[in-house]
This record gives sequence, structure tokens and C-alpha cells, in this order.
Amino acid sequence: MTQIEEFQAALHSAIPITRALGLRVAAYDAAGLALTAPLAPNRNDKGTVFAGSLNTALTLAGWGLLWLALREHGRAGVVIIQDSSIEYLRPVADDFVARCARPAPAELERLLATLERRGRARIELAGEIVEGGQVAVMFRARYVVQQ
Amino acid sequence: MTQIEEFQAALHSAIPITRALGLRVAAYDAAGLALTAPLAPNRNDKGTVFAGSLNTALTLAGWGLLWLALREHGRAGVVIIQDSSIEYLRPVADDFVARCARPAPAELERLLATLERRGRARIELAGEIVEGGQVAVMFRARYVVQQ
Repeated sequence: MTQIEEFQAALHSAIPITRALGLRVAAYDAAGLALTAPLAPNRNDKGTVFAGSLNTALTLAGWGLLWLALREHGRAGVVIIQDSSIEYLRPVADDFVARCARPAPAELERLLATLERRGRARIELAGEIVEGGQVAVMFRARYVVQQ
Repeated sequence: MTQIEEFQAALHSAIPITRALGLRVAAYDAAGLALTAPLAPNRNDKGTVFAGSLNTALTLAGWGLLWLALREHGRAGVVIIQDSSIEYLRPVADDFVARCARPAPAELERLLATLERRGRARIELAGEIVEGGQVAVMFRARYVVQQ
């Protein structure tokens, strides 16, 4: 299994509701982690994507980015979301992609060094959902990583 | 059907992912709206309730409170969440209840009057999840109601 297949299997096994949402990895690269889900199981009363599903996908894009980064650096750790804020700027009318940006290398180094020293570290990540070239959802969250 | 049964049927029909979460109405009274869901379909990698499910339940407790309040006042309207912030203070280890507090009567009157005048109005609501007598999750959100 590739690292991405391993992550997706872990996601579906550890957090079963992600299977009902149809959540899958769209991309994992220098830009960050992108998760995708179809409209149908996530639709709301307006026929667009339900806010709870948008929030869930962004919460997991950040969680997954840290899950993958820890493994890349040969570290074990549990990732816990501490708080988040979200702005639903426009309705999302179709299958969607939730992206979490990779933190700057210095930020990630600081996270790993603090984790090593204290067994626990915190990081803030930013995510977004873009549709038709326009930002539809903006997301920020703080995560705690524990050994 | 009672008003609560009608709301729950509308919830499950309009937002199908709520069936996968096992989300149901626990109470609707002077205090506000309480939605409940079981741990099993909402568990995460730590065996506690997944943050996305907690956020979803609170998002819908606020949405549902406004859905019910509009109907009680004989008003038609679509309820849209605009933004929210959430603090995950403690893990939730069991079936949970997401509560959204009813706004003060003057706040609700202002919402309905603005809706009447402008066809659109905004309100901020507060929600929480309490477990074992302690607040586990704090939530605030702004919703827009449109005729």
C-alpha cells in the first residue's frame, strides 16, 4: 500500500462515518492534503452540500495532513483537534474538495521539536474549499499532537 | 405528527447524512433544542466521538431551533449557517446530546421583524455538549434566515 492508501484505509477504519460521507483522498503533495466527497450523500435541504459535511471534511484534511507528516518523519503520535472556526461564504453545489495547506517547513520543525521535548505540541492549520475558482469555505483550526 | 416528529422527518429527509449519524431529537422545550446521537457510528480513532460529528450535531441543533421557531410563528423561511466557531474542551466518550439554547424573546422578535421588513435576517446562537456535568464542547454560530 502507498502512504495515501494506508491513510485512507486508516481513515475509513478509525472514523467509520467517513465511509457514509464518501470521503476519499484526492491529492497529497507539496501544497498539502486534499480530500474529496460527492454531493449525493452530503446534500442538504437546499440541494447543496450540508455545512456539517464541509466542516467534517476540512477537520479531517487537517487531521490527515498531520497524520501523514508524523509518519513521514518517523514519529508516532495521536492528533486531536482543539478548536476551529469556519466561514461558509458561498453554497457548494457539487462534489467538493477540502484542502488543508501544508505548514511552512519551520512550523513543522517547531512542532516536531516540541513534540520530542514535551511529548505534546500544538499547531494551527488553514483549510479551504474552492468551487468554480472562488473560495466557498474558509477554515482555521488548532490541533494538538501527543506522543 | 407532532411538531418534533415533523422536524425529525424533515431532518432525515432533507439532510440524509443525519440518518448515518443516528441523529434524533432528544428534547425541544423552553431551554432550546437538544439533538442526540449514539457513539458507535460516530466514533473516532481514540474510541470517543469524532469532532466532525460533534460539530455537525451542534450545527443542526441551531438550524433546527430556527426551523421550529419559524414554524411556531407561522413563518416560512430557509435557514443557512454563515459561520461558526467551536472549542473541543474534553473528549466525549459516550452517546451525546448537542444543545442549542433558545435565544432571548427580544432577540427572536428582532429576527422575525427584520425578516418581515427585509426578507432576510441574521442571528447568533450558542450551543454546547455537556458530559458528566462538565462542558465538553462549546459552539457559537451565526445563521441567516431568508424568506
